[in-house]
Amino acid sequence: MLQRRLLQQGARLTATRSGDVGGAVTVLDSATAPERLRDIHTLIFDCDGVLWRGSDIIRNAPEALRVFRQQGKRLLFVTNNSSKSRAEYASKFGSLGLEVSPEEIVSSSYCAAAYLSSIGFPASGKKVLLLGWSGVEQELQLAGIPFIGGRELEVPAMDNIDSMKQLKVDPSIGAVVVGWDPNFSYSRLVYASVCLRELPGCVLVATNTDCADHIGGGRMMPGTGGLVRCVETAAGATAVNVAKGGEWLLPYLCRTYNLDPSRTAIVGDRLDTDIHLGRQGGLFTCLPLTGVTTLERLRGLPVGELPDVVVPSVAQLAGLD
Amino acid sequence: MLQRRLLQQGARLTATRSGDVGGAVTVLDSATAPERLRDIHTLIFDCDGVLWRGSDIIRNAPEALRVFRQQGKRLLFVTNNSSKSRAEYASKFGSLGLEVSPEEIVSSSYCAAAYLSSIGFPASGKKVLLLGWSGVEQELQLAGIPFIGGRELEVPAMDNIDSMKQLKVDPSIGAVVVGWDPNFSYSRLVYASVCLRELPGCVLVATNTDCADHIGGGRMMPGTGGLVRCVETAAGATAVNVAKGGEWLLPYLCRTYNLDPSRTAIVGDRLDTDIHLGRQGGLFTCLPLTGVTTLERLRGLPVGELPDVVVPSVAQLAGLD
Repeated sequence: MLQRRLLQQGARLTATRSGDVGGAVTVLDSATAPERLRDIHTLIFDCDGVLWRGSDIIRNAPEALRVFRQQGKRLLFVTNNSSKSRAEYASKFGSLGLEVSPEEIVSSSYCAAAYLSSIGFPASGKKVLLLGWSGVEQELQLAGIPFIGGRELEVPAMDNIDSMKQLKVDPSIGAVVVGWDPNFSYSRLVYASVCLRELPGCVLVATNTDCADHIGGGRMMPGTGGLVRCVETAAGATAVNVAKGGEWLLPYLCRTYNLDPSRTAIVGDRLDTDIHLGRQGGLFTCLPLTGVTTLERLRGLPVGELPDVVVPSVAQLAGLD
Repeated sequence: MLQRRLLQQGARLTATRSGDVGGAVTVLDSATAPERLRDIHTLIFDCDGVLWRGSDIIRNAPEALRVFRQQGKRLLFVTNNSSKSRAEYASKFGSLGLEVSPEEIVSSSYCAAAYLSSIGFPASGKKVLLLGWSGVEQELQLAGIPFIGGRELEVPAMDNIDSMKQLKVDPSIGAVVVGWDPNFSYSRLVYASVCLRELPGCVLVATNTDCADHIGGGRMMPGTGGLVRCVETAAGATAVNVAKGGEWLLPYLCRTYNLDPSRTAIVGDRLDTDIHLGRQGGLFTCLPLTGVTTLERLRGLPVGELPDVVVPSVAQLAGLD
């Protein structure tokens, strides 16, 4: 029995080499995993929980990417995090020793702008009300989409009914985009709700609907999902989720990057976003155990919801350790 | 044909006397409605949309209450609004010419405190984290339940991951209460989420889950429902809804006021809260058309979801107008 210590904070896994470790879940290793990617041309990587955790690189992740590139595979990096732009993400990759270009990065901040472009929003002459952070701001600017909100608080205080009755919103707003927003407030909620209820054709876009994210030390921080549910409930609207977990992203990726789903794999640690996206589109699905999903959780799943491959980490998927 | 003009802002209804006005929906009038209440001992009134709309009293509502009192019926006033305490509500009733004592008022602010008392919270030595307004503050004080939050902002700014990692919450918090909260913010959400995820036994209480409220001029303001969904999603918790629409309220009312459901009617304008509460508990259900529910909406309903009686307003239910 080969004892294998994971780099994952907290959880530890002891598994036999390629052994069955409970029910239908088999954890492959560096000897058996690479063969499963032989016919794969494109690898779509989730980032947090796969390549890094917070500010800690997963062991041998940079080397794994180099191996895949040497094999001639195309790499894409798709993250539901909306706080950074593509350019900001490229800096983060570089600082962790990962060689990645901005064009290979599909952050949900970028997806929000790409979705609006795909529906012709930039030519509409309309503005976005942004409940979000710098990443979405930068991507909207690059796509030529004007916005109000973002990091600047421009909403009057809505602390009584009279202020809400008298509120006049900018009538040129045509979309509300909700991302991770540490400036989220009741006043912003009122403004967004009035736009969505009263401005004809105003659409609601969610950068993602993730409920919460691990930030280390066993702590979780509220994700964008709660903010989206809040706006949806108050406005009686349904958001378009442009990230993993939604319906828009995969057809967009296939169209834009000319992907053949049968030759594409997704490597991600979340069942509800990464593995869901992959199964939804007929992709090959790989789950490394360096993120939020534990072996215990996998053991409880019906076979139809399991990923195609489970590996201790992305290193084993590349034949490394 | 008797033309009848409603006091309702916006919508107008033209109906024959006691006539069938579409499908299974019959709108009773002052000649036919009172007979249906003959065997009713207790009337539970919703307030906004039944007795008043915003700051406008519904015509003959004070006289209708006098008629019911003269008939020896007991009156209760149950509202999902959490912004006021019982005492504050009694003042509002008085200012509109409605003679009502605080003991007859069951506001959702009061329900939050009553629920916590019903589970023994005051004796636990624990505090409440309140995301809410003065009404809940006052009711918690009257029930002897200490709290932090409320109208005072006591939460440090949570605008980056480090601040969230370092956040230390008050370990004596045993419940998070979410009501209408114009101070709601991402920082408050983080604090509530950490309490619910990390403090053993910490419970989540919603004063109500109403999505939005009419404030006149065709405008709606975000209700408490969106804030509750936001906290639930971020914390991975399920709130106890102590108001109409939840499971707790009716058994509590029956126990506290010794109600016989078969002798009790509810008069309310909302299908999802008032009529739902009544049908759930086997009460007689009366819907006046002075609130949010229109005849068109009723016509689209299956018979099993219709109220027992539809009246133009509470005045006709008392044989007036």
